[in-house]
Amino acid sequence: MRGYFITFEGPDGAGKTTQIDLLSKYLLDKGLNVVVTREPGGTPISEAIRGIILDTNHSEMDPVTEMYLYAASRAQHVSQLIAPALRQGKIVLCDRFVDSSIAYQGAGRGLGMKMVEEINSAALQGVMPDITLFFDIDPEKGLTRGRNRDRRADRLELEGIGFHRDVYEAFCRLCHMYPERFRRINADGDIMEIHRQIINLIEQLPKYGK
Amino acid sequence: MRGYFITFEGPDGAGKTTQIDLLSKYLLDKGLNVVVTREPGGTPISEAIRGIILDTNHSEMDPVTEMYLYAASRAQHVSQLIAPALRQGKIVLCDRFVDSSIAYQGAGRGLGMKMVEEINSAALQGVMPDITLFFDIDPEKGLTRGRNRDRRADRLELEGIGFHRDVYEAFCRLCHMYPERFRRINADGDIMEIHRQIINLIEQLPKYGK
Repeated sequence: MRGYFITFEGPDGAGKTTQIDLLSKYLLDKGLNVVVTREPGGTPISEAIRGIILDTNHSEMDPVTEMYLYAASRAQHVSQLIAPALRQGKIVLCDRFVDSSIAYQGAGRGLGMKMVEEINSAALQGVMPDITLFFDIDPEKGLTRGRNRDRRADRLELEGIGFHRDVYEAFCRLCHMYPERFRRINADGDIMEIHRQIINLIEQLPKYGK
Repeated sequence: MRGYFITFEGPDGAGKTTQIDLLSKYLLDKGLNVVVTREPGGTPISEAIRGIILDTNHSEMDPVTEMYLYAASRAQHVSQLIAPALRQGKIVLCDRFVDSSIAYQGAGRGLGMKMVEEINSAALQGVMPDITLFFDIDPEKGLTRGRNRDRRADRLELEGIGFHRDVYEAFCRLCHMYPERFRRINADGDIMEIHRQIINLIEQLPKYGK
Protein backbone atom coordinates (compact mmCIF):
# COMPACT_ATOMS: atom_id res chain seq x y z
CA MET A 1 0.00 0.00 0.00
CA ARG A 2 1.33 3.39 -1.01
CA GLY A 3 -0.51 6.69 -0.96
CA TYR A 4 -0.41 9.49 -3.48
CA PHE A 5 1.94 12.46 -3.36
CA ILE A 6 0.78 15.72 -5.01
CA THR A 7 2.95 18.85 -4.95
CA PHE A 8 1.94 22.43 -5.79
CA GLU A 9 4.52 24.68 -7.40
CA GLY A 10 4.69 28.12 -8.97
CA PRO A 11 5.36 31.78 -8.26
CA ASP A 12 4.35 33.43 -5.00
CA GLY A 13 0.79 34.72 -5.05
CA ALA A 14 -0.37 32.12 -7.59
CA GLY A 15 -3.11 30.91 -5.24
CA LYS A 16 -1.59 27.54 -4.29
CA THR A 17 -2.69 27.65 -0.63
CA THR A 18 -6.32 28.43 -1.52
CA GLN A 19 -6.42 25.59 -4.02
CA ILE A 20 -4.80 23.11 -1.63
CA ASP A 21 -7.55 23.89 0.91
CA LEU A 22 -10.27 23.38 -1.69
CA LEU A 23 -8.78 20.13 -3.01
CA SER A 24 -8.24 18.84 0.51
CA LYS A 25 -11.93 19.41 1.36
CA TYR A 26 -12.98 17.74 -1.89
CA LEU A 27 -10.89 14.64 -1.18
CA LEU A 28 -11.95 14.46 2.47
CA ASP A 29 -15.61 14.62 1.36
CA LYS A 30 -14.91 11.53 -0.74
CA GLY A 31 -13.76 9.79 2.45
CA LEU A 32 -10.09 9.80 1.53
CA ASN A 33 -7.27 10.18 4.02
CA VAL A 34 -5.53 13.51 3.30
CA VAL A 35 -2.44 15.16 4.79
CA VAL A 36 -1.83 18.85 3.99
CA THR A 37 1.68 20.18 4.49
CA ARG A 38 4.12 22.78 3.19
CA GLU A 39 7.78 23.54 2.59
CA PRO A 40 9.88 24.72 4.16
CA GLY A 41 8.17 23.29 7.24
CA GLY A 42 5.82 20.45 8.14
CA THR A 43 7.65 19.17 11.25
CA PRO A 44 8.89 21.02 14.36
CA ILE A 45 12.55 20.83 13.23
CA SER A 46 11.66 21.88 9.67
CA GLU A 47 9.61 24.81 10.98
CA ALA A 48 12.58 25.93 13.11
CA ILE A 49 14.72 25.83 9.95
CA ARG A 50 12.00 27.76 8.08
CA GLY A 51 12.29 30.49 10.71
CA ILE A 52 16.00 30.91 9.94
CA ILE A 53 15.49 30.86 6.14
CA LEU A 54 12.70 33.42 5.91
CA ASP A 55 13.89 35.81 8.64
CA THR A 56 14.22 39.22 6.98
CA ASN A 57 17.10 40.02 9.37
CA HIS A 58 19.19 37.35 7.62
CA SER A 59 19.94 39.52 4.59
CA GLU A 60 23.60 38.39 4.64
CA MET A 61 22.64 34.74 3.99
CA ASP A 62 24.81 33.10 1.33
CA PRO A 63 22.82 31.40 -1.50
CA VAL A 64 24.65 28.13 -0.76
CA THR A 65 23.59 28.31 2.90
CA GLU A 66 20.02 28.88 1.77
CA MET A 67 20.19 25.84 -0.53
CA TYR A 68 21.41 23.55 2.28
CA LEU A 69 18.81 24.87 4.73
CA TYR A 70 15.97 24.02 2.33
CA ALA A 71 17.51 20.57 1.81
CA ALA A 72 17.78 20.07 5.60
CA SER A 73 14.18 21.07 6.14
CA ARG A 74 13.11 18.75 3.31
CA ALA A 75 15.10 15.74 4.59
CA GLN A 76 13.32 16.00 7.95
CA HIS A 77 9.95 16.58 6.30
CA VAL A 78 10.30 13.52 4.06
CA SER A 79 11.59 11.15 6.71
CA GLN A 80 9.30 12.21 9.54
CA LEU A 81 6.05 13.11 7.78
CA ILE A 82 5.75 12.50 4.02
CA ALA A 83 7.26 9.00 3.71
CA PRO A 84 5.35 7.60 6.74
CA ALA A 85 2.05 9.12 5.47
CA LEU A 86 2.57 7.57 2.03
CA ARG A 87 3.37 4.19 3.59
CA GLN A 88 0.04 4.47 5.42
CA GLY A 89 -1.72 4.98 2.08
CA LYS A 90 -2.56 8.65 2.61
CA ILE A 91 -2.84 11.39 -0.02
CA VAL A 92 -0.19 14.03 0.73
CA LEU A 93 -0.79 17.57 -0.61
CA CYS A 94 2.40 19.62 -0.29
CA ASP A 95 2.77 23.37 -0.89
CA ARG A 96 6.19 23.52 -2.63
CA PHE A 97 8.79 20.71 -2.76
CA VAL A 98 12.15 20.00 -4.43
CA ASP A 99 11.18 21.79 -7.67
CA SER A 100 11.00 25.07 -5.73
CA SER A 101 14.61 24.58 -4.62
CA ILE A 102 15.68 23.91 -8.21
CA ALA A 103 13.83 27.01 -9.43
CA TYR A 104 14.56 29.46 -6.59
CA GLN A 105 18.12 28.51 -5.61
CA GLY A 106 19.21 26.89 -8.88
CA ALA A 107 17.86 29.57 -11.24
CA GLY A 108 16.84 32.53 -9.04
CA ARG A 109 20.06 32.53 -7.01
CA GLY A 110 22.12 31.29 -9.96
CA LEU A 111 23.58 28.18 -8.29
CA GLY A 112 22.61 26.03 -11.28
CA MET A 113 19.51 23.84 -11.54
CA LYS A 114 21.49 20.62 -11.93
CA MET A 115 23.70 21.25 -8.90
CA VAL A 116 20.72 21.99 -6.66
CA GLU A 117 18.93 18.88 -7.92
CA GLU A 118 21.99 16.74 -7.14
CA ILE A 119 22.58 18.22 -3.68
CA ASN A 120 18.93 17.53 -2.83
CA SER A 121 18.90 13.89 -3.87
CA ALA A 122 19.87 12.67 -0.38
CA ALA A 123 16.95 14.64 1.12
CA LEU A 124 14.35 12.79 -0.94
CA GLN A 125 15.17 9.27 0.21
CA GLY A 126 13.54 7.94 -2.93
CA VAL A 127 10.28 9.86 -2.46
CA MET A 128 9.19 11.88 -5.52
CA PRO A 129 5.79 13.44 -6.24
CA ASP A 130 3.38 11.32 -8.26
CA ILE A 131 2.12 14.54 -9.77
CA THR A 132 3.20 18.18 -9.63
CA LEU A 133 0.75 20.98 -10.36
CA PHE A 134 2.49 24.03 -11.77
CA PHE A 135 0.44 27.17 -11.08
CA ASP A 136 1.15 29.16 -14.18
CA ILE A 137 0.77 32.89 -13.61
CA ASP A 138 2.80 35.87 -14.75
CA PRO A 139 5.32 36.40 -11.95
CA GLU A 140 4.62 40.14 -11.86
CA LYS A 141 0.92 39.50 -11.34
CA GLY A 142 1.70 36.90 -8.66
CA LEU A 143 3.91 39.30 -6.74
CA THR A 144 1.27 42.03 -6.77
CA ARG A 145 -1.31 39.54 -5.47
CA GLY A 146 1.06 38.25 -2.79
CA ARG A 147 1.83 41.75 -1.56
CA ASN A 148 -1.82 42.55 -1.03
CA ARG A 149 -1.97 39.84 1.58
CA ASP A 150 -2.46 40.60 5.22
CA ARG A 151 1.08 39.67 6.27
CA ARG A 152 4.65 40.93 5.81
CA ALA A 153 6.72 39.70 2.86
CA ASP A 154 9.42 37.12 3.72
CA ARG A 155 13.10 37.28 2.68
CA LEU A 156 12.54 35.63 -0.73
CA GLU A 157 9.40 37.54 -1.65
CA LEU A 158 11.39 40.76 -1.17
CA GLU A 159 13.60 39.90 -4.17
CA GLY A 160 13.22 41.96 -7.34
CA ILE A 161 11.16 41.07 -10.40
CA GLY A 162 14.25 39.82 -12.31
CA PHE A 163 14.74 37.11 -9.69
CA HIS A 164 11.07 36.08 -9.86
CA ARG A 165 11.13 35.99 -13.64
CA ASP A 166 14.16 33.64 -13.58
CA VAL A 167 12.28 31.43 -11.13
CA TYR A 168 9.21 31.38 -13.38
CA GLU A 169 11.27 30.41 -16.42
CA ALA A 170 12.92 27.62 -14.44
CA PHE A 171 9.50 26.19 -13.58
CA CYS A 172 8.62 26.27 -17.29
CA ARG A 173 11.83 24.35 -18.05
CA LEU A 174 11.01 21.78 -15.38
CA CYS A 175 7.59 21.30 -17.02
CA HIS A 176 9.37 20.42 -20.25
CA MET A 177 11.99 18.23 -18.59
CA TYR A 178 9.46 16.14 -16.64
CA PRO A 179 6.26 16.14 -18.73
CA GLU A 180 5.02 12.87 -17.20
CA ARG A 181 5.03 14.39 -13.71
CA PHE A 182 4.17 18.07 -14.30
CA ARG A 183 0.70 19.43 -15.08
CA ARG A 184 0.21 23.08 -15.95
CA ILE A 185 -2.66 24.90 -14.23
CA ASN A 186 -3.82 28.22 -15.63
CA ALA A 187 -3.73 30.10 -12.33
CA ASP A 188 -4.84 33.47 -13.65
CA GLY A 189 -8.60 33.20 -13.26
CA ASP A 190 -11.55 32.57 -11.02
CA ILE A 191 -10.85 30.51 -7.88
CA MET A 192 -13.64 27.99 -8.49
CA GLU A 193 -12.71 27.69 -12.16
CA ILE A 194 -9.14 26.79 -11.16
CA HIS A 195 -10.50 24.35 -8.58
CA ARG A 196 -12.53 22.63 -11.31
CA GLN A 197 -9.41 22.38 -13.54
CA ILE A 198 -7.62 20.62 -10.70
CA ILE A 199 -10.51 18.26 -9.92
CA ASN A 200 -10.77 17.24 -13.59
CA LEU A 201 -7.08 16.59 -13.69
CA ILE A 202 -7.01 14.59 -10.44
CA GLU A 203 -10.02 12.49 -11.45
CA GLN A 204 -8.23 11.46 -14.64
CA LEU A 205 -5.18 10.19 -12.80
CA PRO A 206 -4.70 6.45 -12.38
CA LYS A 207 -6.27 5.48 -9.03
CA TYR A 208 -5.07 8.02 -6.49
CA GLY A 209 -4.50 6.82 -2.95
CA LYS A 210 -6.43 4.25 -0.92
CA MET B 1 48.13 37.72 -0.13
CA ARG B 2 46.47 34.73 1.52
CA GLY B 3 46.43 33.85 5.23
CA TYR B 4 46.81 30.47 6.84
CA PHE B 5 43.94 28.16 7.76
CA ILE B 6 44.47 25.72 10.65
CA THR B 7 41.70 23.36 11.79
CA PHE B 8 41.50 21.35 15.00
CA GLU B 9 39.80 17.97 14.89
CA GLY B 10 39.29 14.97 17.14
CA PRO B 11 36.95 13.43 19.71
CA ASP B 12 35.02 15.53 22.22
CA GLY B 13 37.02 16.25 25.36
CA ALA B 14 40.39 16.03 23.57
CA GLY B 15 41.35 19.53 24.74
CA LYS B 16 41.04 21.34 21.39
CA THR B 17 39.55 24.55 22.84
CA THR B 18 42.31 24.91 25.45
CA GLN B 19 45.01 24.42 22.83
CA ILE B 20 43.40 26.86 20.40
CA ASP B 21 43.46 29.51 23.15
CA LEU B 22 47.13 28.83 23.90
CA LEU B 23 48.16 28.83 20.23
CA SER B 24 46.17 31.98 19.57
CA LYS B 25 47.99 33.80 22.42
CA TYR B 26 51.35 32.52 21.13
CA LEU B 27 50.67 33.81 17.61
CA LEU B 28 49.27 37.14 18.82
CA ASP B 29 52.43 37.61 20.92
CA LYS B 30 54.41 37.24 17.70
CA GLY B 31 52.39 40.13 16.27
CA LEU B 32 50.37 37.98 13.88
CA ASN B 33 46.77 38.63 12.95
CA VAL B 34 44.68 35.74 14.34
CA VAL B 35 41.00 34.85 14.05
CA VAL B 36 39.62 32.16 16.38
CA THR B 37 36.35 30.51 15.38
CA ARG B 38 34.43 27.26 15.66
CA GLU B 39 31.95 24.98 13.93
CA PRO B 40 29.08 24.79 13.88
CA GLY B 41 28.97 28.56 14.39
CA GLY B 42 31.16 31.57 13.80
CA THR B 43 28.52 33.90 12.28
CA PRO B 44 25.05 34.90 13.55
CA ILE B 45 23.28 32.68 10.97
CA SER B 46 25.64 29.75 11.65
CA GLU B 47 25.10 30.12 15.40
CA ALA B 48 21.33 30.06 14.87
CA ILE B 49 21.79 26.81 12.90
CA ARG B 50 24.04 25.47 15.68
CA GLY B 51 21.17 26.04 18.11
CA ILE B 52 18.90 23.78 16.04
CA ILE B 53 21.56 21.07 15.59
CA LEU B 54 22.64 20.71 19.21
CA ASP B 55 19.23 21.19 20.88
CA THR B 56 18.65 18.07 22.98
CA ASN B 57 14.90 18.40 22.32
CA HIS B 58 15.56 17.55 18.67
CA SER B 59 16.03 13.83 19.33
CA GLU B 60 13.91 12.97 16.25
CA MET B 61 16.39 14.67 13.88
CA ASP B 62 17.16 12.57 10.80
CA PRO B 63 20.90 12.01 10.14
CA VAL B 64 20.48 13.48 6.65
CA THR B 65 18.93 16.64 8.11
CA GLU B 66 21.87 16.89 10.50
CA MET B 67 24.33 16.57 7.62
CA TYR B 68 22.68 19.39 5.64
CA LEU B 69 22.49 21.66 8.69
CA TYR B 70 26.23 21.32 9.30
CA ALA B 71 26.86 22.04 5.61
CA ALA B 72 24.57 25.11 5.76
CA SER B 73 26.34 26.45 8.82
CA ARG B 74 29.71 25.83 7.12
CA ALA B 75 28.74 27.54 3.85
CA GLN B 76 27.83 30.70 5.76
CA HIS B 77 30.94 30.47 7.93
CA VAL B 78 33.26 30.12 4.94
CA SER B 79 31.68 32.85 2.82
CA GLN B 80 31.14 35.40 5.57
CA LEU B 81 34.11 34.86 7.89
CA ILE B 82 36.83 32.38 6.88
CA ALA B 83 37.35 33.29 3.21
CA PRO B 84 37.39 37.08 3.86
CA ALA B 85 39.85 36.62 6.78
CA LEU B 86 42.18 34.52 4.62
CA ARG B 87 41.99 37.08 1.82
CA GLN B 88 43.10 39.68 4.40
CA GLY B 89 46.14 37.53 5.20
CA LYS B 90 44.95 36.43 8.65
CA ILE B 91 45.65 33.15 10.43
CA VAL B 92 42.34 31.39 11.04
CA LEU B 93 42.16 28.83 13.88
CA CYS B 94 38.95 26.82 13.61
CA ASP B 95 37.60 24.34 16.16
CA ARG B 96 36.22 21.57 13.87
CA PHE B 97 35.59 21.84 10.12
CA VAL B 98 34.55 19.60 7.22
CA ASP B 99 36.47 16.57 8.57
CA SER B 100 34.14 16.52 11.58
CA SER B 101 31.16 16.20 9.23
CA ILE B 102 32.84 13.34 7.39
CA ALA B 103 33.66 11.58 10.68
CA TYR B 104 30.45 12.28 12.67
CA GLN B 105 27.77 12.12 9.97
CA GLY B 106 29.64 9.95 7.46
CA ALA B 107 30.95 7.31 9.88
CA GLY B 108 29.16 7.97 13.21
CA ARG B 109 25.69 8.28 11.65
CA GLY B 110 26.53 5.79 8.89
CA LEU B 111 25.74 8.05 5.91
CA GLY B 112 29.07 7.19 4.27
CA MET B 113 32.24 9.28 4.40
CA LYS B 114 32.37 9.79 0.62
CA MET B 115 28.75 10.97 0.37
CA VAL B 116 29.17 13.52 3.16
CA GLU B 117 32.39 14.79 1.59
CA GLU B 118 30.64 15.24 -1.76
CA ILE B 119 27.56 16.96 -0.32
CA ASN B 120 29.87 19.39 1.52
CA SER B 121 31.93 20.41 -1.48
CA ALA B 122 29.64 23.34 -2.37
CA ALA B 123 29.98 24.66 1.21
CA LEU B 124 33.76 25.01 0.97
CA GLN B 125 33.86 27.33 -2.05
CA GLY B 126 37.42 26.19 -2.68
CA VAL B 127 38.63 26.88 0.87
CA MET B 128 40.44 23.94 2.50
CA PRO B 129 42.62 23.94 5.64
CA ASP B 130 46.36 24.37 5.07
CA ILE B 131 46.89 22.10 8.02
CA THR B 132 44.61 19.99 10.22
CA LEU B 133 45.67 18.98 13.73
CA PHE B 134 44.09 15.70 14.77
CA PHE B 135 43.87 15.49 18.56
CA ASP B 136 44.47 11.80 19.10
CA ILE B 137 42.93 10.54 22.32
CA ASP B 138 41.04 7.37 23.20
CA PRO B 139 37.38 8.32 22.60
CA GLU B 140 36.32 6.78 25.92
CA LYS B 141 38.83 8.95 27.77
CA GLY B 142 37.71 12.02 25.82
CA LEU B 143 34.06 11.43 26.67
CA THR B 144 34.85 11.08 30.39
CA ARG B 145 36.80 14.33 30.30
CA GLY B 146 34.06 16.10 28.36
CA ARG B 147 31.39 15.00 30.83
CA ASN B 148 33.28 16.43 33.78
CA ARG B 149 32.85 19.87 32.25
CA ASP B 150 30.69 22.48 33.85
CA ARG B 151 27.97 22.39 31.19
CA ARG B 152 25.28 20.03 29.90
CA ALA B 153 26.14 17.56 27.13
CA ASP B 154 24.76 18.44 23.68
CA ARG B 155 22.81 16.11 21.37
CA LEU B 156 25.90 14.51 19.79
CA GLU B 157 27.87 14.09 23.00
CA LEU B 158 24.93 12.09 24.37
CA GLU B 159 25.55 9.32 21.78
CA GLY B 160 26.93 5.97 23.01
CA ILE B 161 30.57 4.88 22.98
CA GLY B 162 30.08 2.81 19.78
CA PHE B 163 29.20 6.00 17.88
CA HIS B 164 32.25 7.83 19.26
CA ARG B 165 34.55 4.90 18.45
CA ASP B 166 33.32 4.93 14.81
CA VAL B 167 34.01 8.67 14.70
CA TYR B 168 37.52 8.16 16.09
CA GLU B 169 38.31 5.48 13.51
CA ALA B 170 37.07 7.76 10.74
CA PHE B 171 39.49 10.48 11.88
CA CYS B 172 42.32 7.92 11.75
CA ARG B 173 41.28 7.02 8.19
CA LEU B 174 41.27 10.69 7.19
CA CYS B 175 44.83 11.00 8.57
CA HIS B 176 45.87 8.22 6.22
CA MET B 177 43.90 9.57 3.26
CA TYR B 178 45.33 13.11 3.54
CA PRO B 179 48.82 12.75 5.05
CA GLU B 180 50.02 16.05 3.57
CA ARG B 181 47.30 17.98 5.41
CA PHE B 182 46.81 16.02 8.66
CA ARG B 183 49.16 16.10 11.66
CA ARG B 184 48.56 13.82 14.62
CA ILE B 185 48.82 15.39 18.09
CA ASN B 186 49.16 13.09 21.10
CA ALA B 187 46.37 14.71 23.12
CA ASP B 188 46.61 12.42 26.16
CA GLY B 189 49.08 14.31 28.29
CA ASP B 190 50.03 17.52 30.02
CA ILE B 191 48.46 20.69 28.60
CA MET B 192 51.77 22.58 28.22
CA GLU B 193 53.45 19.51 26.71
CA ILE B 194 50.71 19.35 24.06
CA HIS B 195 51.06 23.08 23.46
CA ARG B 196 54.82 22.61 22.85
CA GLN B 197 54.08 19.79 20.34
CA ILE B 198 51.80 22.18 18.45
CA ILE B 199 54.28 25.09 18.50
CA ASN B 200 57.06 22.84 17.17
CA LEU B 201 54.82 21.66 14.40
CA ILE B 202 53.60 25.13 13.44
CA GLU B 203 57.13 26.57 13.44
CA GLN B 204 58.22 23.93 10.95
CA LEU B 205 55.47 24.76 8.49
CA PRO B 206 56.33 26.77 5.38
CA LYS B 207 55.75 30.44 6.18
CA TYR B 208 52.42 30.72 7.93
CA GLY B 209 50.36 33.83 7.40
CA LYS B 210 51.40 37.44 7.08
